[in-house]
Amino acid sequence: MTKNCINVGLIGCGVVGTGVANNLVNGTAQKRHLPCELKLKRIADLYPYKERAYKLPLDLFTTNADDILNDPEIDIVVELIGGCGIARQVITKALENKKNVVTANKALLAEYGPKLAALAKENGVDLYYEAAVCGGIPVIKAVREGLAADTIKSVRGIVNGTCNYILTRMGKDQMAFDDAVKAAQQNGYAEADPTFDLIGKDSLHKIVLLCANCFGSWVKPENISTEGIMGLDQIDIRCAYELGYAIKLLAWAKEKDGKLECMVAPTLIDKSSMLAKVSDAYNAVEINGSPIGRTVYYGEGAGMDATSSAVTADIIDIARNIYSGSVGRLPVFALDKEIEVVPAPDMEMRYYLRWKTDDKPGVIAALSNVLTERNIGISSVILHEFAKAQPYSIVTFMTRETKEAKIKDAISELDKLGCIQSKTVMLRVESGF
Amino acid sequence: MTKNCINVGLIGCGVVGTGVANNLVNGTAQKRHLPCELKLKRIADLYPYKERAYKLPLDLFTTNADDILNDPEIDIVVELIGGCGIARQVITKALENKKNVVTANKALLAEYGPKLAALAKENGVDLYYEAAVCGGIPVIKAVREGLAADTIKSVRGIVNGTCNYILTRMGKDQMAFDDAVKAAQQNGYAEADPTFDLIGKDSLHKIVLLCANCFGSWVKPENISTEGIMGLDQIDIRCAYELGYAIKLLAWAKEKDGKLECMVAPTLIDKSSMLAKVSDAYNAVEINGSPIGRTVYYGEGAGMDATSSAVTADIIDIARNIYSGSVGRLPVFALDKEIEVVPAPDMEMRYYLRWKTDDKPGVIAALSNVLTERNIGISSVILHEFAKAQPYSIVTFMTRETKEAKIKDAISELDKLGCIQSKTVMLRVESGF
Repeated sequence: MTKNCINVGLIGCGVVGTGVANNLVNGTAQKRHLPCELKLKRIADLYPYKERAYKLPLDLFTTNADDILNDPEIDIVVELIGGCGIARQVITKALENKKNVVTANKALLAEYGPKLAALAKENGVDLYYEAAVCGGIPVIKAVREGLAADTIKSVRGIVNGTCNYILTRMGKDQMAFDDAVKAAQQNGYAEADPTFDLIGKDSLHKIVLLCANCFGSWVKPENISTEGIMGLDQIDIRCAYELGYAIKLLAWAKEKDGKLECMVAPTLIDKSSMLAKVSDAYNAVEINGSPIGRTVYYGEGAGMDATSSAVTADIIDIARNIYSGSVGRLPVFALDKEIEVVPAPDMEMRYYLRWKTDDKPGVIAALSNVLTERNIGISSVILHEFAKAQPYSIVTFMTRETKEAKIKDAISELDKLGCIQSKTVMLRVESGF
Repeated sequence: MTKNCINVGLIGCGVVGTGVANNLVNGTAQKRHLPCELKLKRIADLYPYKERAYKLPLDLFTTNADDILNDPEIDIVVELIGGCGIARQVITKALENKKNVVTANKALLAEYGPKLAALAKENGVDLYYEAAVCGGIPVIKAVREGLAADTIKSVRGIVNGTCNYILTRMGKDQMAFDDAVKAAQQNGYAEADPTFDLIGKDSLHKIVLLCANCFGSWVKPENISTEGIMGLDQIDIRCAYELGYAIKLLAWAKEKDGKLECMVAPTLIDKSSMLAKVSDAYNAVEINGSPIGRTVYYGEGAGMDATSSAVTADIIDIARNIYSGSVGRLPVFALDKEIEVVPAPDMEMRYYLRWKTDDKPGVIAALSNVLTERNIGISSVILHEFAKAQPYSIVTFMTRETKEAKIKDAISELDKLGCIQSKTVMLRVESGF
């Protein structure tokens, strides 16, 4: 069973792939006492000659992934192509060929996770994916191993570095949304087309994987209410700050009365909380378990270096399994129950509502009447002083816990009021983590 | 090789032991898909009948540890006696009898770690100790597995909940040191005799274990300069706050020019940093690695629940090893090099100096002359306004990077000055993490 050299094949040598290849070729990955040799045997990429951040031996390259997938000497296939197309074929074939797989592909796993996990099990190989959720934070390992004795009550995280960078610039530097997006692009924190991050899709994929590990249940992405930060107004960052909150794009889930509440949305969180302190492109995940209590894991969310660390740690983990004959030691996802997901309209949260209104008497009364008629409790009303020189008013309400259906019904009524100059802005407020 | 039931014997059923036994007996520990049964077969404690937080089956108890150590059916021995006396005998005998061991005993490991690790290896068994460093934070797992691909540059942590609780009360509630200690005792965060925590000894043991895992080198406790928070003055908390810092008891180590700097001391850290936000009895560890970057792990440092989670996760981890035939999969400590530890006098840091002085002209000049004569740069001088109604002055200096030998020499001279009414208070200031 024991092998003295574990061979790795890397498919997809872009930014992260280059980092991983460098880790393996330069041997830093082996420093931490792996009992066997770890060898990068082959790299498949369509562009062997393109310029990369690290120089890699050209003779490792092939343009044909099958040179790796069909090589009987290769023990671990690292898929870093991304997306649900070729990557899916590559991983499927690798597993079918009884090769262990390491991937950072959250989109693919969120869509096909249970199928791929079953395929891995069927073929008696490992499928590791630490890098798929917050590259520079070993949070999958923390949940499924470090917290193995715990029942997880809730998980919430800032899991998208692009959005967090934008929100940080909007908060600290009072930038407008568009300017903050540009700043993110100029600093390499956002893609040329950052839509995927901004609409919350990337965060959605990560919370699916976190849910599987925290709750032992597979939540389909389409069952998770998802809102991004697209077009968030600087005014709301400011109003939230005055109310004692930071706005963060949160992906969260919690068990409540045997059901699961799960959501991705820009959310007001207490300024003094650990998560509110997470700035720039950093990520953090907070997990509340029993008996362990509240834990937080913080680090860089993405980028070549942080992500390559996670991928390489997975390779080392699997290499240990191969060496010690314990492949399959951990289930890919330990799914053992189906938890009903509470539909968004039935979820109870607190809400932040904001309007630009006419500057005239009766506005606050008109707004609050709509809520009072629906029995929605209000915990804060502010007509904001900072807009005093303007020909309009800025008004915010904070509600007490209310079902989303109820608040949405109220909003449709509020938006009909003659005294408001812009439609209601509604944001969630954290509660009960 | 495969066993369908792994038997656990618990030796020492105090607070944490009761938590662990409860986890095992009530089966929550097995929820996360362990492929085999995990059974608490026996508990050894001198007081089977004493009242415990959870009811445990009385027939599990014995007063004789040998009933566990000599039971051929027991696979994992959990040592929760503590201290370096009987606990050492118990662990030694367990390892010699080829039983895997889980312990939370930092004092024992800091003193005899390498010997016990060698004994475990010799007998082909595992020795796990996640609970020895920050119970509610899976930081040992994070370092030795999650960051397996990384070269660690530095580690620093708030690793003693008692001290952090006291410092939080002194900071947030402006309590005097003695009152804060009493508050900690009343709230169950400090022992009746809290000396061991207050002098930094507990933090010292933890940084020894962190160093072994981060740097692959065993640092002897006696080579680590250790100061606690005993007698810390409320005035210094206040002055530090005005300067933009919080005072935390930090245990830290970093590699510098191939040598290791390592220390336990109350330290001024930037108020806006993640670690400065760690309040009450919570702990946090910050690790800076390459390529992963900066990561932080946060959670409860001690207590029955958090610590029992860590012990139980270790039991599960070893059970997986036993089940999959991969005991010894990870080295106890992956020690592969001896790094020279820089003696404290040669370490360069920034310093905070504070005096109660006469309220008369020339004081600042006299103080700064002593530093200037020794070529010690000064980055801040404040005669604090808050003491304006007093018949004395409060003066603080912040120095630039200076060797400790030099600052101590200066202090011996400063303490001779006629204008100061109290000896120099010297605290370290964080730099370069």
